[in-house]
Amino acid sequence: MKRGPITGKRGYEINADIAFKAVNPADYDILVISGGKGPEKMRLDKDALEIVKHFFKENKPVAAICHGPQVLVSAGVIKGRKATCWIGIRDDIIAAGALYEDSEVVVDRNLVSSRNPGDLFAFGREMIKLLN
Amino acid sequence: MKRGPITGKRGYEINADIAFKAVNPADYDILVISGGKGPEKMRLDKDALEIVKHFFKENKPVAAICHGPQVLVSAGVIKGRKATCWIGIRDDIIAAGALYEDSEVVVDRNLVSSRNPGDLFAFGREMIKLLN
Repeated sequence: MKRGPITGKRGYEINADIAFKAVNPADYDILVISGGKGPEKMRLDKDALEIVKHFFKENKPVAAICHGPQVLVSAGVIKGRKATCWIGIRDDIIAAGALYEDSEVVVDRNLVSSRNPGDLFAFGREMIKLLN
Repeated sequence: MKRGPITGKRGYEINADIAFKAVNPADYDILVISGGKGPEKMRLDKDALEIVKHFFKENKPVAAICHGPQVLVSAGVIKGRKATCWIGIRDDIIAAGALYEDSEVVVDRNLVSSRNPGDLFAFGREMIKLLN
């Protein structure tokens, strides 16, 4: 995926200031994977998956919400991990070997996950804790 | 899921003339599972999953396209089956034990699957063959 402006489904625009390919994951302290329709594209990007693998290999904080865990499934890092996600993909993370929990936030070592936008407060709280 | 009118994302309206709960699957010769955002809801409906299980148990034709195979994952019927799907959920059906193929249509006994709307001709052709 390229750098440059991206328009969300509600019309908000953000600027992707770096492409996955140009990222040196060693320069970053946390990886946050948001939800929506992005993860179904991101999971097909080999460079994105390499970033995810780096964070798990180095045991550095990863936070994923809603459809975000789809990227973790494709990176092969969710097996045996306690996690949650958007309920519509629950059976997919279970099939991939995750230990699914229906909680607003689930923390398993370096991994923080939440279900939906209503969980954002708990998601942010636990994410910040991992950074401290 | 209830009976009644449903409006698609492009504004087309169709009438769901029966709820999943009221369906007697023995009355039907084929099950067609379309794609889009519906399968993430349908896969959470126990009555829908019972319908899917009936078709596989009786070896009756099932056709699934795009995100449709998400419902097959949740019904626990895709393991060991040759199948295809929307590329964004490829890794999910693989995690669930499907033998993924990147073809316009894949036929494995009673199951016909396709990847996306561009495959509809082949999808329909193989679906009809199974009914003959």
